[in-house]
Amino acid sequence: MGIVTLVTDFGGSDYYVAAIKGVLLRLAPGVEIVDVGHDVAAGDVEGAAWLLGAAWPWFPEETVHLAVVDPGVGSGRRILAARVADHFFVAPDNGLLTPVLGLDDVEVRAVERDELYLPGPGNTFHGRDRFAPVAAFLARYAELAALGPVIDDAVRLEIPAPRAEGEPPRPDAAGAVLHGRVAHVDRFGNLITDMPAEWVGEGACRVEVGEWSVERRVGFYDEIPAGEVAMLVGSLGTLELSRDQESLSRRWAVGRGESVRVVVLP
Amino acid sequence: MGIVTLVTDFGGSDYYVAAIKGVLLRLAPGVEIVDVGHDVAAGDVEGAAWLLGAAWPWFPEETVHLAVVDPGVGSGRRILAARVADHFFVAPDNGLLTPVLGLDDVEVRAVERDELYLPGPGNTFHGRDRFAPVAAFLARYAELAALGPVIDDAVRLEIPAPRAEGEPPRPDAAGAVLHGRVAHVDRFGNLITDMPAEWVGEGACRVEVGEWSVERRVGFYDEIPAGEVAMLVGSLGTLELSRDQESLSRRWAVGRGESVRVVVLP
Amino acid sequence: MGIVTLVTDFGGSDYYVAAIKGVLLRLAPGVEIVDVGHDVAAGDVEGAAWLLGAAWPWFPEETVHLAVVDPGVGSGRRILAARVADHFFVAPDNGLLTPVLGLDDVEVRAVERDELYLPGPGNTFHGRDRFAPVAAFLARYAELAALGPVIDDAVRLEIPAPRAEGEPPRPDAAGAVLHGRVAHVDRFGNLITDMPAEWVGEGACRVEVGEWSVERRVGFYDEIPAGEVAMLVGSLGTLELSRDQESLSRRWAVGRGESVRVVVLP
Repeated sequence: MGIVTLVTDFGGSDYYVAAIKGVLLRLAPGVEIVDVGHDVAAGDVEGAAWLLGAAWPWFPEETVHLAVVDPGVGSGRRILAARVADHFFVAPDNGLLTPVLGLDDVEVRAVERDELYLPGPGNTFHGRDRFAPVAAFLARYAELAALGPVIDDAVRLEIPAPRAEGEPPRPDAAGAVLHGRVAHVDRFGNLITDMPAEWVGEGACRVEVGEWSVERRVGFYDEIPAGEVAMLVGSLGTLELSRDQESLSRRWAVGRGESVRVVVLP
Repeated sequence: MGIVTLVTDFGGSDYYVAAIKGVLLRLAPGVEIVDVGHDVAAGDVEGAAWLLGAAWPWFPEETVHLAVVDPGVGSGRRILAARVADHFFVAPDNGLLTPVLGLDDVEVRAVERDELYLPGPGNTFHGRDRFAPVAAFLARYAELAALGPVIDDAVRLEIPAPRAEGEPPRPDAAGAVLHGRVAHVDRFGNLITDMPAEWVGEGACRVEVGEWSVERRVGFYDEIPAGEVAMLVGSLGTLELSRDQESLSRRWAVGRGESVRVVVLP
Repeated sequence: MGIVTLVTDFGGSDYYVAAIKGVLLRLAPGVEIVDVGHDVAAGDVEGAAWLLGAAWPWFPEETVHLAVVDPGVGSGRRILAARVADHFFVAPDNGLLTPVLGLDDVEVRAVERDELYLPGPGNTFHGRDRFAPVAAFLARYAELAALGPVIDDAVRLEIPAPRAEGEPPRPDAAGAVLHGRVAHVDRFGNLITDMPAEWVGEGACRVEVGEWSVERRVGFYDEIPAGEVAMLVGSLGTLELSRDQESLSRRWAVGRGESVRVVVLP
């Protein structure tokens, strides 16, 4: 029996996550459940999407990734099931699947199998009554096509992609100007950007965030001089900014979504 | 091997939950452990009882539900083991099992099998030394009767049950007045009452909580107009009050235990 | 397949713990993963060491205990693998393994198996790229010797051990003076010291912490009179100080590391 991972905004003090797990264990006996995270801010679809996108590639093939941040629960919003690289995904059609919707060979289906659903009570907890049964189905049978028709109009979050100004020969050519954003702030206050590290290359560059800028570059956190700030290649292969022994996010008062500008130096 | 769920007030920063899990895995190898919640306020037996009562029905039969909020640890308070609908329960005799004690066909026993217990050290952590071994025993052998004698005087929390004023022909008849309370405030600040939704019926009614009242009724959260409050049928089949995009509990300064009065309108 | 426990300072809001679990499940299919704790303060090696030391003995033999609080990630610090009492340990060489390094028959090795490691990206997340593969290797093969050479210079935290003043015939002789420290403050605000309870014996004694002192002794929390403070034997067999219904740590403004002096009374 397979693995089901969970991303939700249900926190740790309610019965919601437990109910989802109970249903999974009833409908897919022996399934292994892994909490990716439940502390996403209430209704924060973008935060959940980032977490899902960062976590899923590290799991084994055939894993089912269930993500439930669902302010539209009970409305007509669709339930999506998808497959990428032999991983399965189940989530509401509200942008939560954005990180996988743009990938090659993604197959996205709108779930239309009402007979799989549990009858309630109420209409406020599809995580338990609908999403968990669909995830359990995939964990047991791995049959995406049986869930409903392929669609091509799944909702995507409008997050600007990182880009190079003009058309430089290569993004890392001297003088090139790159634009990205802070995609996530981690527990340590590191600013994780969406800028692929290879765009910046190995040479010198200046990273500008709001009124701040940094040119120091290190290979790992411990190389940052006491009390200083530096850029480094983060664990997802993107540019990351970090401050020694302190949250850079708090120090700079910079959070998710802030624009990041990179100037490649000669 | 079966499933053991855990409800405790041990939080996430101590070794207590891990020690319980280690003992479970030593005494019942292969058991699947599911955290229902450990963030119950310290010593909050009622909060833990609510969480247990909300979560257990969604798990498979034969699941063992272990609940440890135990300010009386080391004193003479009994250890209870119970069975309802082929689920097992283990908890201190302090009211924690209240949600199952009133159910039909519940079997409650006082555990008297000292030889199952671990020897300590100390007398402050029966979760590890006594409750976990009893839960492991049930996960392995499912023999409730072997644990001790049936009792009928288990401690119950004195929580008033919802009731209808007078003797209306049906609770949802126009003019009927119903009394309940806020049983739980969830992470989103929704007020989850103990009032069965079918008592209120499908017609119009007014819900009064403290100085506040609401008559708007919706089917799901997303139907609540911007910045407004509404009632709806919650995920446990009881009346729930919710505010669009904001914690109603904070907005109204209403918490668990607050009285709820419902007047069925003509 | 075995069990892997996790202690980290990665918290609950990032993808870090999930990535470690994904790698474990890919490299050691079927492994059972148990969270000991991820809420260690960022970079708090001593806190993580205490948690690891308190939790590991309760797990079954062959369990692999993976601990990642690793501010030196990417630098030259070694990766350690150890065995004690048929438990395995994997951690950075920064003092995190201190609780097991002093035990009899401990075997400590510096991991030198680069081909086990994942290639990145970046150099900031050895928890995922190096520690998890090493833990998965031990979970699968239990072959400590295959990981690298035995070493005897692993980094240890310089935490003073509890001691008796002078050379009393026995630590618990009347007039003996013992010195220890607060090793941990638990969720309830109890002060857990490192002083073995048997040193203090069964007789009267006075415990002094900062400007405070206490002579009352109880067997369990519920024996502490309302609003009072008492000492008792804690769940790890050491002296513990507790206040009825309130955090003693907050009340006394005493935290981890505070000196504890015990005078055995006649």
